[in-house]
Amino acid sequence: MTLIDTPTHQHSSSRGATVPQARIARDAVFEQARRLAADFAATAVERDARGGTPKAERDALRASGLLSLSIPLEYGGIGANWRVTLDVVRLFGAADSSLAHVFGFHHLMLATTRLFGRASQWESWFEQTARRRWFWGNALNPLDTRTISRPQDGWHEFSGQKSFCSGALDSEMMIASAREAGSETLLVAAVPSARQGISIADDWNSIGQRQTDSGTVTFEKVRVEDHEILADPGPLSTPFACLRPLLAQLILTNVYLGIAESAFNDARYYTLHEARPWHASQVSAATEDPYILGQYGEFWVGLESVRVLAERAAERFDAAWRRGPALTEEERGSVALAVACAKVAAIRTGLDICTRMFEVAGARATHGSLRLDRHWRNLRTHTLHDPLAYKLRELGDWALTQTYPAPGFYS
Amino acid sequence: MTLIDTPTHQHSSSRGATVPQARIARDAVFEQARRLAADFAATAVERDARGGTPKAERDALRASGLLSLSIPLEYGGIGANWRVTLDVVRLFGAADSSLAHVFGFHHLMLATTRLFGRASQWESWFEQTARRRWFWGNALNPLDTRTISRPQDGWHEFSGQKSFCSGALDSEMMIASAREAGSETLLVAAVPSARQGISIADDWNSIGQRQTDSGTVTFEKVRVEDHEILADPGPLSTPFACLRPLLAQLILTNVYLGIAESAFNDARYYTLHEARPWHASQVSAATEDPYILGQYGEFWVGLESVRVLAERAAERFDAAWRRGPALTEEERGSVALAVACAKVAAIRTGLDICTRMFEVAGARATHGSLRLDRHWRNLRTHTLHDPLAYKLRELGDWALTQTYPAPGFYS
Amino acid sequence: MTLIDTPTHQHSSSRGATVPQARIARDAVFEQARRLAADFAATAVERDARGGTPKAERDALRASGLLSLSIPLEYGGIGANWRVTLDVVRLFGAADSSLAHVFGFHHLMLATTRLFGRASQWESWFEQTARRRWFWGNALNPLDTRTISRPQDGWHEFSGQKSFCSGALDSEMMIASAREAGSETLLVAAVPSARQGISIADDWNSIGQRQTDSGTVTFEKVRVEDHEILADPGPLSTPFACLRPLLAQLILTNVYLGIAESAFNDARYYTLHEARPWHASQVSAATEDPYILGQYGEFWVGLESVRVLAERAAERFDAAWRRGPALTEEERGSVALAVACAKVAAIRTGLDICTRMFEVAGARATHGSLRLDRHWRNLRTHTLHDPLAYKLRELGDWALTQTYPAPGFYS
Amino acid sequence: MTLIDTPTHQHSSSRGATVPQARIARDAVFEQARRLAADFAATAVERDARGGTPKAERDALRASGLLSLSIPLEYGGIGANWRVTLDVVRLFGAADSSLAHVFGFHHLMLATTRLFGRASQWESWFEQTARRRWFWGNALNPLDTRTISRPQDGWHEFSGQKSFCSGALDSEMMIASAREAGSETLLVAAVPSARQGISIADDWNSIGQRQTDSGTVTFEKVRVEDHEILADPGPLSTPFACLRPLLAQLILTNVYLGIAESAFNDARYYTLHEARPWHASQVSAATEDPYILGQYGEFWVGLESVRVLAERAAERFDAAWRRGPALTEEERGSVALAVACAKVAAIRTGLDICTRMFEVAGARATHGSLRLDRHWRNLRTHTLHDPLAYKLRELGDWALTQTYPAPGFYS
Repeated sequence: MTLIDTPTHQHSSSRGATVPQARIARDAVFEQARRLAADFAATAVERDARGGTPKAERDALRASGLLSLSIPLEYGGIGANWRVTLDVVRLFGAADSSLAHVFGFHHLMLATTRLFGRASQWESWFEQTARRRWFWGNALNPLDTRTISRPQDGWHEFSGQKSFCSGALDSEMMIASAREAGSETLLVAAVPSARQGISIADDWNSIGQRQTDSGTVTFEKVRVEDHEILADPGPLSTPFACLRPLLAQLILTNVYLGIAESAFNDARYYTLHEARPWHASQVSAATEDPYILGQYGEFWVGLESVRVLAERAAERFDAAWRRGPALTEEERGSVALAVACAKVAAIRTGLDICTRMFEVAGARATHGSLRLDRHWRNLRTHTLHDPLAYKLRELGDWALTQTYPAPGFYS
Repeated sequence: MTLIDTPTHQHSSSRGATVPQARIARDAVFEQARRLAADFAATAVERDARGGTPKAERDALRASGLLSLSIPLEYGGIGANWRVTLDVVRLFGAADSSLAHVFGFHHLMLATTRLFGRASQWESWFEQTARRRWFWGNALNPLDTRTISRPQDGWHEFSGQKSFCSGALDSEMMIASAREAGSETLLVAAVPSARQGISIADDWNSIGQRQTDSGTVTFEKVRVEDHEILADPGPLSTPFACLRPLLAQLILTNVYLGIAESAFNDARYYTLHEARPWHASQVSAATEDPYILGQYGEFWVGLESVRVLAERAAERFDAAWRRGPALTEEERGSVALAVACAKVAAIRTGLDICTRMFEVAGARATHGSLRLDRHWRNLRTHTLHDPLAYKLRELGDWALTQTYPAPGFYS
Repeated sequence: MTLIDTPTHQHSSSRGATVPQARIARDAVFEQARRLAADFAATAVERDARGGTPKAERDALRASGLLSLSIPLEYGGIGANWRVTLDVVRLFGAADSSLAHVFGFHHLMLATTRLFGRASQWESWFEQTARRRWFWGNALNPLDTRTISRPQDGWHEFSGQKSFCSGALDSEMMIASAREAGSETLLVAAVPSARQGISIADDWNSIGQRQTDSGTVTFEKVRVEDHEILADPGPLSTPFACLRPLLAQLILTNVYLGIAESAFNDARYYTLHEARPWHASQVSAATEDPYILGQYGEFWVGLESVRVLAERAAERFDAAWRRGPALTEEERGSVALAVACAKVAAIRTGLDICTRMFEVAGARATHGSLRLDRHWRNLRTHTLHDPLAYKLRELGDWALTQTYPAPGFYS
Repeated sequence: MTLIDTPTHQHSSSRGATVPQARIARDAVFEQARRLAADFAATAVERDARGGTPKAERDALRASGLLSLSIPLEYGGIGANWRVTLDVVRLFGAADSSLAHVFGFHHLMLATTRLFGRASQWESWFEQTARRRWFWGNALNPLDTRTISRPQDGWHEFSGQKSFCSGALDSEMMIASAREAGSETLLVAAVPSARQGISIADDWNSIGQRQTDSGTVTFEKVRVEDHEILADPGPLSTPFACLRPLLAQLILTNVYLGIAESAFNDARYYTLHEARPWHASQVSAATEDPYILGQYGEFWVGLESVRVLAERAAERFDAAWRRGPALTEEERGSVALAVACAKVAAIRTGLDICTRMFEVAGARATHGSLRLDRHWRNLRTHTLHDPLAYKLRELGDWALTQTYPAPGFYS
């Protein structure tokens, strides 16, 4: 595989992605992703029932090489831009939204090292991740302040717990955070998941996103070396570093969109193949029922809106990423607005489709063995990450007073 | 216990329910219903996971005497009017919507004998049901035309299958229907569930309403005596007989309302006791968050609307019931409109609350052990019974051209 | 005319309104109100275009005796309860919402003397109003703090301005308010509109409610006698006094409902008589179009919800009114919740119908000469009185923490 | 002025529009359009009140040269592509939606000659329109079948009436249609508006779009030469010819979007400069009110969705236009879907903003002199052109069964 588009080649325009060689690489990526997605989809129902770690699927992701999708070519990665990476997240989202989440957040963790750390740090991690097929997990949750860091000589001691650590189980590396004792400063570090003192609980049990392993990580006097701390430029320290939460939100948006598309497709399958016309409809097939058609029309307008908004946001994000440290607050703000719009639309359209899909699919679609309620459960669980109302408020601040969202871990 | 209000005492007005003795009886009914509801609620989560027959709870209903709630005093029943019976359905709906459904439909089956049959038929069944604490199940599904009746000398032979037979398992009696071979006439009969040739499959497995046992009943050359056929006046034969589908829809409406109230109460519990204020809200408690309060305001307007509409519909239904065979098409039509309004409102408000409850309750409410998704699953499954769009169309026919809904098993 | 139901007869129950003589009186009131409403409706379009004072219609209200509708029998009034008075407001609202507003607020002004003042005050004003057919106007607007009161010996001097003084033009009496210089205490007084120093500007020009004369009143050293000040018990001083804003909100709610019903009726007329089926609908008449019927179904559910909520609120208000000074905070709070629910529902349903009516009525309904946009304009203008969002917040406070709305001039 | 992008240069890609010279031309176009828009906006309120023909503004459009905006360079036009032309329509839509409509439909009429006629026809009309600054009006309304054509020797005689003839008054040319007597075939012709026998009534009076002159045209034995008939390829005869209704719908969509943006801007102005914080909000300025901000957030998501959908539709339309007669049904269908999505979103978002703008702008925004209700009136009137419900149905047909909208004058 070869170049698609890379953040380190800032002279290459997004248009550059359409040169023949890049197109071949992109097609190969999507072909492989589609194969994997088909495999994930085939067992998604059973694994939704089971919960726990999708070990076989995580290993399939390792084997596929797609864990280096966003890693630039020069470090042995596939060198995809974010638009391509997010399209793969969305593709996985339509197959199995748990896997889409851990896959997307794996790339978010890599991006975190790039955005918060020094070249000498992320270059090494990029290279090792590509070569050794590492999976990165998340133990950063900034709202959980129970993990404390105490400075030592050349290292820090992390102790405490972190909740909602998606993908930490069965990972080789994790991004962990802690508050410095006394100063309350947030430290973010990249550490091997097997580091002594780290224990990762298998305690995730939610109504949805059941195989994201978003459980608790406990740090017991964990030694974090200074060179593992992402301190230069450090967390959310520059407009460029502040792209990190935007990437997180974009990944979520693409998972939501994948779920909505999956719900739409499942509904369509049942309307086409199982639904019978309602006796009062005076039509001969459910596909001619005016109200069913009207609902599909609404689903379509919703999905198309989300798709164009999400694609525009991804393109703006890529453009900002290519700007690197030169990125200004205004440029970053403009990406933030595009991401927030796409996210709000994805949540609303998604919940609507996941609920109303049954009104067009017919009663058979509620059969327990199909677990079609998982679309709603997955989306509902995942969309509580940060409140929709405050995302709207941020957009309102912009719309009314031209104030950009204040950067933070959720904006 | 004594008189609350009875359909056979047509001279008694609904105002009559407020005489002291009746009030005592009503209070006793609700006290007992609340006790049962508390027991049902305590195990609802576990039984939602398990599915199957809620045998212990059905037996508790038998023991309580509430299976004779709608049976007039003179036949040994409690003699409640429908408003009271439906209030108990709603109470159970908030505790466990599966039990509310089979309890409500038990009373619907009794009413079916009253509305479709002769006094000599229902008097006997009322009396035996009250004395022997029978549970009635449903095998009437008019949309499933697979069961055929062949006339014999003094009896009919029923053969074929019926789907969606809620509450047929663990019942003493059932209402079954068949199409007469040749004429396609619908025959409705009351038969003992243990009758030779009847087998009731334990094959119900849905994403919601998991303990309603809405599975398949198979009739294999079942002997149905002529005196078990409800032929005088017969199904949907008179405006009074056409109250049957309205009662069915009212029972569903009250189950929906019960679910919505339960979802609201669960949300409230979590907002009050578990939710933490969002960091950007600048308030010290989730209970002061303007957007959370706004959402509760919307829930409240929705619930109150459904409550007043459902109560008005129940009162109109009781008045129509008291009219007996004198009921006119117009009077029946007026009840149908009230019921349809209440049902539409209950579905919309219910789905909205069951989905948005998580936005105010906080992330802990998605914990798998709570199974709070069951509210959405139960409501979603149950509201596909007949399409909302056609209910709105019926109301539109009335609103625009003053045409009453054409009576049928769903209108 | 004779007794319908009166606030001063606290021992009479609302049930008492059904005795024959009362029913005759009620029928006569509605017959007369309907006659007036028909006259108002006949010229509503022309007067909407013109704006200004509906002098002829105000005089017709005077001549009808309906300005004493809410005045108890013993003071020469018709003695209607509030349910009846509000039903007349709603009837007028469907004919001409400007007249409904000034008519409803006339009764609000009378009620204000009853709630804020001494018996010796309101008894006299009730008696004179009934005898002399006075029209009362509003100059109370508590949010406009420009009018200042300075205490003198036995009287107060009011100076300053008040905006939004609906119905003050062409009134015999007005309720005016001022802030006491220094103490900021709110003084509310009943004064003759012709009192020296009072000038009422004809400066109301709004997109809707164009004949409400809601312009500016200027007080220039106006002498307000002490016995004209409503100081015992005083404004919003007791739970009973705090019924005043609830009555104001209920009047608004009934005006909104009247507008919505009028928009619905106009839409219906055009669908029935003018609309042509859309070529793609494959039906022969607009009345059979599935989407048009669906929309009418939605209108109907909306209207019915508002109707039951508004009627319940009126009945609760009457019950609270009959309690008199014994009314508790909780009882008052319960009325406040019922009123707020009805108001929110009326606004939402009304705006929806006033906008969507054109989608079912066909293009001819947009003809300029019909001015059917006036429904939207009237409702939109009138519903900005106080923000819907804060009404929802109040309901949310109750729903979540069981806190009653804090009494104020808008709650 | 020089090339922007032209439909006749099929080898030029849309990317070609970014070469320096084209950008200069585009900037000049927008600068001039903005100047005109500012002039239109300055008198829009007064002209909305007046109705009738905006003669001065139409002459300003003539003088500006923008009537040749979509005419290719080689015929003396500005050579803008449709994206640019539609952007100007939207710009005018935000200033005065009546002018935007007649301006957009002028270009639609020109495109109609291109799509339905022979090169020898449109080349001449393009050239004359550019040189003589002609304004084209619309007398095509296919739903009004009252105008009949009778074939003569070398010409046709048109007699009858056409309603909704926007922009026909004060036009030099018009597109007229008639049904051929006997065959019912639709004939479409381009004729000088001053042709003997044509009379254009000044009878347009609607609640909105008051200066579109969408009145009645009467044809009394009008001689239409054969070379004026657009018969090769003829109306809706090929996929390329079927782009005509899509352009019509795209123009409407951009007018709607312009209106919505104007309503948003007006709301914003009043919130920023006039609105006062609600006393219960406990904030010091309306711009900090959480509910006001939330509403602006919703407006923003809505507007952004419409913007991206409308822009994508315009780009797809340009690509299809460049394909010329080679355009396939599938390619045309894909444009139809993009246009329909954008239109549905524009209508819904627009009506929502035009109604709710007053909830955030404060009561002063309802002052009659501002006529801010005109946004709602304009949009409401204009969006009844063809039913939203059937647009959704078409989209549903695609979503469910992958059936493209059947081409027709509204699809």
